[in-house]
Amino acid sequence: MTGFARTETAGRDRPDLSPSVAARHACRNGMATHTAGVANGFVQGNLAILPEKLAAAFHRFCQLNPKPCPIIGMSDVGDPRIPALGLDLDIRTDLPRYRIWRDGEIVEEPTDIMAHWRDDLVAFVLGCSFSFEEALLEEGLPIRHIERDVRVPMFRTNIACSPAGPFAGPMVVTMRPFKPADAIRAIQITSRFPSVHGAPVHIGLPQSIGIADLAKPDYGDPVPVEADEIPVFWACGVTPQSVIAAAKVPFAITHAPGLMLVTDLRNKALAVL
Amino acid sequence: MTGFARTETAGRDRPDLSPSVAARHACRNGMATHTAGVANGFVQGNLAILPEKLAAAFHRFCQLNPKPCPIIGMSDVGDPRIPALGLDLDIRTDLPRYRIWRDGEIVEEPTDIMAHWRDDLVAFVLGCSFSFEEALLEEGLPIRHIERDVRVPMFRTNIACSPAGPFAGPMVVTMRPFKPADAIRAIQITSRFPSVHGAPVHIGLPQSIGIADLAKPDYGDPVPVEADEIPVFWACGVTPQSVIAAAKVPFAITHAPGLMLVTDLRNKALAVL
Repeated sequence: MTGFARTETAGRDRPDLSPSVAARHACRNGMATHTAGVANGFVQGNLAILPEKLAAAFHRFCQLNPKPCPIIGMSDVGDPRIPALGLDLDIRTDLPRYRIWRDGEIVEEPTDIMAHWRDDLVAFVLGCSFSFEEALLEEGLPIRHIERDVRVPMFRTNIACSPAGPFAGPMVVTMRPFKPADAIRAIQITSRFPSVHGAPVHIGLPQSIGIADLAKPDYGDPVPVEADEIPVFWACGVTPQSVIAAAKVPFAITHAPGLMLVTDLRNKALAVL
Repeated sequence: MTGFARTETAGRDRPDLSPSVAARHACRNGMATHTAGVANGFVQGNLAILPEKLAAAFHRFCQLNPKPCPIIGMSDVGDPRIPALGLDLDIRTDLPRYRIWRDGEIVEEPTDIMAHWRDDLVAFVLGCSFSFEEALLEEGLPIRHIERDVRVPMFRTNIACSPAGPFAGPMVVTMRPFKPADAIRAIQITSRFPSVHGAPVHIGLPQSIGIADLAKPDYGDPVPVEADEIPVFWACGVTPQSVIAAAKVPFAITHAPGLMLVTDLRNKALAVL
């Protein structure tokens, strides 16, 4: 890692670069439009940046709600680096696109946040389902929305997150349909990955968690659940973004949906057993 | 253990005896009528005894179908002892009641098999759901049939066991209803215990495995599945008994339902992690 940690040029011409470093360099140089399928094997993360005054409450919110908000890295106050996730990582430039929030509204979606960075900001990186989906696919389990090349369907539930300061609201979940034996295997596999949402929070019976119609997700795209399948629900990293919006905090920055931070961590290294 | 391994008297007057040894002594002395709830914490097992000529095929059947037929101990040919399960254990006397099978029919249900023992018999002891039920209860998960003090409902499925020699037939499963979050937890807990049926084989959708009506089990007693619950199905130790009956082998011995072998193994020691 150290050999290319200071590299400032684009990664595409540098075969010596790790795929994750190259992905961040592509973001830094404005050449990245997505991260899905990029740098396979490396952990991608959701981003939430808050002023120090709110960061402690948000940190507590994540601590209280580890399934939707599993923290895999955070910055020091005012420091745009997170060395534990990548030695050369600069959180201000290394994602394809960001969202600037003011009073609960998105006011801008820039490709870097150099102009928005402040000395009082704290960055949180939260685990993302891409990591456990890789583990599911490697075990041969079919994932419907990937097969269909659409976004995973997401639903607001009636499961209340534990509140902390201004942060409160319902858990958002993703849904993936599986045949029953595959659903059992999916529970076993994702239980090994608590830092990227871990085991499902619900299975079957959508109405029990306040989902009226599986064909009408609140975010993402619908996918069919066949007669021989049951829906399996995982806590979703959209939860913190939804909670930040609901809290109408004066200022926050997040990633734009699906355009994540690519880290140097390996998905496989997240397995707890 | 060694101190009382040779004891031949009844266990009830011997406070120095381990509960499992005492339970076997009670069987040996004709004083035991059941094993459910006896010697809590100790592994109980299903019993199948076959002549050497059939034992290899049955052993292969168990090897091919480890979820319904997890072997936790077996005897040498003609030897009624299984020291790995209890130093003083005598498989001919240490269960409350046996079934003698001839040509697929039960011909007798004696309380010992001294008169039926032969030099060519091989005894197989198979894991039983009592062990994983203890683990579920210890984690606070409610088990409906235990709450209601009835037998667990069992169903013949359309899941074919892998055949071996004359042994073939459908898997029998037990059903326990759980709220979805508890079902996920139950999958995690029982996954730790592969030698006592392990993780469920099916969840939800009874018709997918050929179960037409959950209120009409093939063995045991029905229990209700509430609107906010889903049925969870585990492979069942009745499977080998059903397969032995269907094979119409000339001679076999099994335990009588619910009247198991109490071993000196601890349930907790079976956890693989």
